Amino acid sequence: MSFEDAERGEIVTKDAYDARAAELRVNLLDAQYQALKAAKFPVVIVVAGVDGASKSEVLAKLTEWMDPRHVHAHAVGLPSDEELERPPMWRFWRRLPPKGKTGIFFGSWYTQPIIERVERKMDIEEFETALGVVQRFERMIAAEGALVLKFWFHLSKKDQRKRLDTLAASKKTAWRVSKEEWRRFQNYDRFRKISNEALALTTEPPWQIVDGRDWRTAALTVGDAVNDALRIRLESIAENEKAAKAEKADRAEKADKKPKKLRAVAKTQPLSEIDLTKKLDDEEYDEQLLVEQRRLALLTRNKRYQKLSPLIVFEGMDAAGKGGAVRRLTAAMDARQYIIVPVAAPTDEERAQPYLWRFWRHAPPERQIAIFDRSWYGRVLVERVEGFCGDAEWRRAFDEINDFEAQLASAANIVVKLWLQVSPDEQLRRFKEREDTPFKRFKITAEDWRNRERLADYQVAANDMLAKTSTVLAPWTVVEADDKRWARIKVLRTVADAIERRL
Amino acid sequence: MSFEDAERGEIVTKDAYDARAAELRVNLLDAQYQALKAAKFPVVIVVAGVDGASKSEVLAKLTEWMDPRHVHAHAVGLPSDEELERPPMWRFWRRLPPKGKTGIFFGSWYTQPIIERVERKMDIEEFETALGVVQRFERMIAAEGALVLKFWFHLSKKDQRKRLDTLAASKKTAWRVSKEEWRRFQNYDRFRKISNEALALTTEPPWQIVDGRDWRTAALTVGDAVNDALRIRLESIAENEKAAKAEKADRAEKADKKPKKLRAVAKTQPLSEIDLTKKLDDEEYDEQLLVEQRRLALLTRNKRYQKLSPLIVFEGMDAAGKGGAVRRLTAAMDARQYIIVPVAAPTDEERAQPYLWRFWRHAPPERQIAIFDRSWYGRVLVERVEGFCGDAEWRRAFDEINDFEAQLASAANIVVKLWLQVSPDEQLRRFKEREDTPFKRFKITAEDWRNRERLADYQVAANDMLAKTSTVLAPWTVVEADDKRWARIKVLRTVADAIERRL
Repeated sequence: MSFEDAERGEIVTKDAYDARAAELRVNLLDAQYQALKAAKFPVVIVVAGVDGASKSEVLAKLTEWMDPRHVHAHAVGLPSDEELERPPMWRFWRRLPPKGKTGIFFGSWYTQPIIERVERKMDIEEFETALGVVQRFERMIAAEGALVLKFWFHLSKKDQRKRLDTLAASKKTAWRVSKEEWRRFQNYDRFRKISNEALALTTEPPWQIVDGRDWRTAALTVGDAVNDALRIRLESIAENEKAAKAEKADRAEKADKKPKKLRAVAKTQPLSEIDLTKKLDDEEYDEQLLVEQRRLALLTRNKRYQKLSPLIVFEGMDAAGKGGAVRRLTAAMDARQYIIVPVAAPTDEERAQPYLWRFWRHAPPERQIAIFDRSWYGRVLVERVEGFCGDAEWRRAFDEINDFEAQLASAANIVVKLWLQVSPDEQLRRFKEREDTPFKRFKITAEDWRNRERLADYQVAANDMLAKTSTVLAPWTVVEADDKRWARIKVLRTVADAIERRL
Repeated sequence: MSFEDAERGEIVTKDAYDARAAELRVNLLDAQYQALKAAKFPVVIVVAGVDGASKSEVLAKLTEWMDPRHVHAHAVGLPSDEELERPPMWRFWRRLPPKGKTGIFFGSWYTQPIIERVERKMDIEEFETALGVVQRFERMIAAEGALVLKFWFHLSKKDQRKRLDTLAASKKTAWRVSKEEWRRFQNYDRFRKISNEALALTTEPPWQIVDGRDWRTAALTVGDAVNDALRIRLESIAENEKAAKAEKADRAEKADKKPKKLRAVAKTQPLSEIDLTKKLDDEEYDEQLLVEQRRLALLTRNKRYQKLSPLIVFEGMDAAGKGGAVRRLTAAMDARQYIIVPVAAPTDEERAQPYLWRFWRHAPPERQIAIFDRSWYGRVLVERVEGFCGDAEWRRAFDEINDFEAQLASAANIVVKLWLQVSPDEQLRRFKEREDTPFKRFKITAEDWRNRERLADYQVAANDMLAKTSTVLAPWTVVEADDKRWARIKVLRTVADAIERRL
C-alpha cells in the first residue's frame, strides 16, 4: 500500500469493529502464548509515522488485546548520558526483547534520522548512511530470528490538519497537540518526502502503511498483521522442526563420517605471508617494554583521550600467548581504565538475543578501554569450523561484523584487532610445556588437543576472516607470536600507535 | 588494627617484598582459579581511605597478581543521569560481580557519605542513615554468599603531607595531586574523625586497616588478606558440601515424610480480619471503573508526577485475579508509561547474584511505573513454604525487604503493595472454570493444584509477610478478591490514592 492508497481506504463501522476486535483478541492472545511458550523468537514492532495518525490509540489496543506482561512499549526519547557515550544504535540494542517477548518501538531508530533530515541538520549523505545502518540492523536481527513488523501511520495533509484541530479542540486531548506538533505540521510536505525516502531505503523487512484517519480501522489493520505474522512464523517453526528431526536421523546414520575440509571463501591468505622467526632478545625486550608501556600510560592520560573508548580485540590460535599479552597491556594502565571481557559460553539471557547482542552490551563508555579476550569473531572461527552455526550464518557474519565495527569506530571507539599466530611446532611445544608445569596445567584441556587436529581448517577460517574483515576503520594486525617477547611488544606498540593516530 | 597501630607498623624491605610477592602471586592465582571454577561466590573488595596512601599501587599489584580477566575494578565517580533517577545504591547493585568473579570498588558506597559529612553537606543524622543503608547492604550480600573484604588505607597527618609532597615533586606523579587533594588534606583532622565514625558504624564484615606509607608493605597486607580469605571460604565450601551430601542421604531415607506444617512467626494475622463478601454490582462497577481510570490517567499526566516512579507490587493467591487487575490498571495508562515485570524463574545471570538483584535491576526511571506481577516476596512465600530457601534466609528476608523498599520509597518511588485474597471455595470454583474453558486452560497447571493442598501453609506465610513488611513507607493493602469487580476497583483506587497523596 502506498501513501496515496492509505488516504482513500475503507473505514470500518463501529459495529463491524466491535465484532472483529472481539475475535481478534482471542486469536492474538492465543498466538502470543504459543510464541511465548516456544520462546524461539522475539517480536519487534516499529510504530512510526505522522503525528495524530492514531499511533497511541493503536498501541493502547495492542496492549489491551495481548497479554501486556510480555509486551514492552519503548518510548525512546533523547539519549541518556550513558547512551551518548556509545554508538547511536546501542540504546536500541539494549532494549531488544528476548525470545518469546514483544518489544514495541514507539520512537525508534527512524525518529532521529527523519527529524534531523527534515530540519536539515543532516545532509542527504548522512541521512543515507544513517538509514543504511538501520537497514542492516533490521536485516540482521530478522536473519537472527526476530519477527520484525514495521508500521508507518499515514495521513494526508488535509486529514492531519483536521485531526490536529479535533485533538486541540477537546479539553481531554488538547495536551497531545503542542507547538511542536504544529511546527512539524508546517513542514508536512517535506516530512512526507523525507519519510518516503526513508521507507524506500529500508524495505527489508517490508513496511506496512497504515491508514491513520480512523483508530478502529488502524487497530484492526495492525492487529491482523501481527496475528498473521505470528501464525505464519509459528507454522514455519513447526515445519522446520519436523525437517530438522528428519535431518538428524539422517545424520545419525552417517555418524562416523569425517567432518568436511573447510573451503576458503576469500582470495587472499594473509597468514601465508608472515615471518614467524621474528624475535627480540631479553635486553631488547626489557628496553622496549619500558618504552611502550610508558608511552601507553602517557597516551591514556592525555586530555584528548578522555573522549575516547578504545576497543581491543584479541584473537589467535590456542597457546599463542593472548593472556600474557593482555597482562603486559593492562600493566601499563590503571585498573580503573579498562575492562576485560573474557568471552566464554553465552548466558541464557545472551542466548535469547542476536549473537552480537552480548558484545554490544559491553561497548565501553568514554575513557574506558574494553579488552575482548576472544570476541564476536567466534562466529566465523570456531562456530564455522565446528559447524555450530549454519553456512548462511557465518557467511553473512563478515558483513555484519564489519558494520558493527564501523559503528564502534565512528563513535568514540578506536578498534584494534590483533591476531596472534604461532607455528604448529611452537604450539605443540607449548601444549606439552603446559601439561608438564603444575600451575599451567589448568590452561590445557582435551579441547585444545582436539582443535589442534583441525589446525588446517582453523587456518582457512582465520585467513578468510583476516581477508574479509580487515577494514580501513578496523584493520587487523597479525602478530607473529612464536617469540613471546616479540609478540608482546608488537601488541603494545600496535595499541599505542592506534591511540596516538587518533589523538 | 587501629589507625594508631597502622602508623607504626613494620615496613618490608625490597628484597623481602620480592621474595614474598613471587610466592603470593602463585598462591593468589591458584586460589582465584579455584574460586572461579567453583563459581559459588563473588568477591567484593572495598578500597577506601586517605589520599596518597598507596591505594592505586595496591590495586595495580592485585590485578597484576590475579588473572585480570576475572577482576573488574570500578572507579565509581559521579552518578550518571540514569543513576540519578534511581535510589543511591542502584549504581552499586548494577556493578556487583557475579559468582566466581571479583569486583574491586575504588570509590565505593563509602565515598559520598564520608565526603559529604566532612564537607558538612550532611548532618550527623543523615550520615548515620546513609551508613545504616551501607551496613545492611554489606551484611546482606555477605549473608547471600559474597566474600566482602574492606580495606581502609591509612596515613598519619605527617605522613600524608610527606607523601603528597613527594608525589607533587615528581614530574611523573604530580598529576595525582590536584588542588582537590590539598584541599582535602587541610581537612585531615575532620576527615580522620569522620572516617573513624564511618568505620565504627560498619563493622560487619570487619574493616582491615592498611598502613599506607609503603606500597610494598600495603600490597602484601592486602594480597595476603585476599588469599587467606579465599582459602578459608573455599575450605568451608568443601566442608559444607560434604555435610550437604550427608544430609541429602539422610533426607532420602525419610523421603515420604510429609512436609512440616508452617508455624507463624508474627503475632497478628491480618487476613483473619477481612470481609470477603464485599462486592459491587455491574452498574456500580462500570461507573467506578470509569471514574478511577480517568483519575489515574489525569494523575499520571500531572506535572509533579514527572519526577516520580511508582512501583506497584501484585501478590496474592493463585486465581485471585492478579492478571485482570493488572490489565484494568494498565488500560488507564499509556503503554509507554509502564513496564510490567512478570516474575518467573530467575535467569542464570540472576542466579549468580543476591536474590534482590533481579528486582533492583528493574527499579524504574522517572515517569515510569514498574508493575511487578509477583515479586521479591517469593522468598517469604513460595520459597519459605516449599523449603526452597533455608530458615535463616527467609527470616532475615523480612528486614532486607523492608530496607529495600525504604530505599525505593525514599527515592522517587511510591511503593504500593497489593495482596489479593480469595476464599478457598472461590478459588476452587475458578480452578474448575479454568479447566473447563478452552482459552483459559493455559492458566491452570498441576502446580496450582499442588499449591492448593498447602493452602493453610501459604496462609500462614502470607499472614507473617503482611504483619512483618507493612511499613509506613510501603504499606500493604489487602484486596478482597472473591468479587472481581470489587477487587479491580480497589486496586485502581489504592494506586490512585497513593499517587495523589504523594502529589
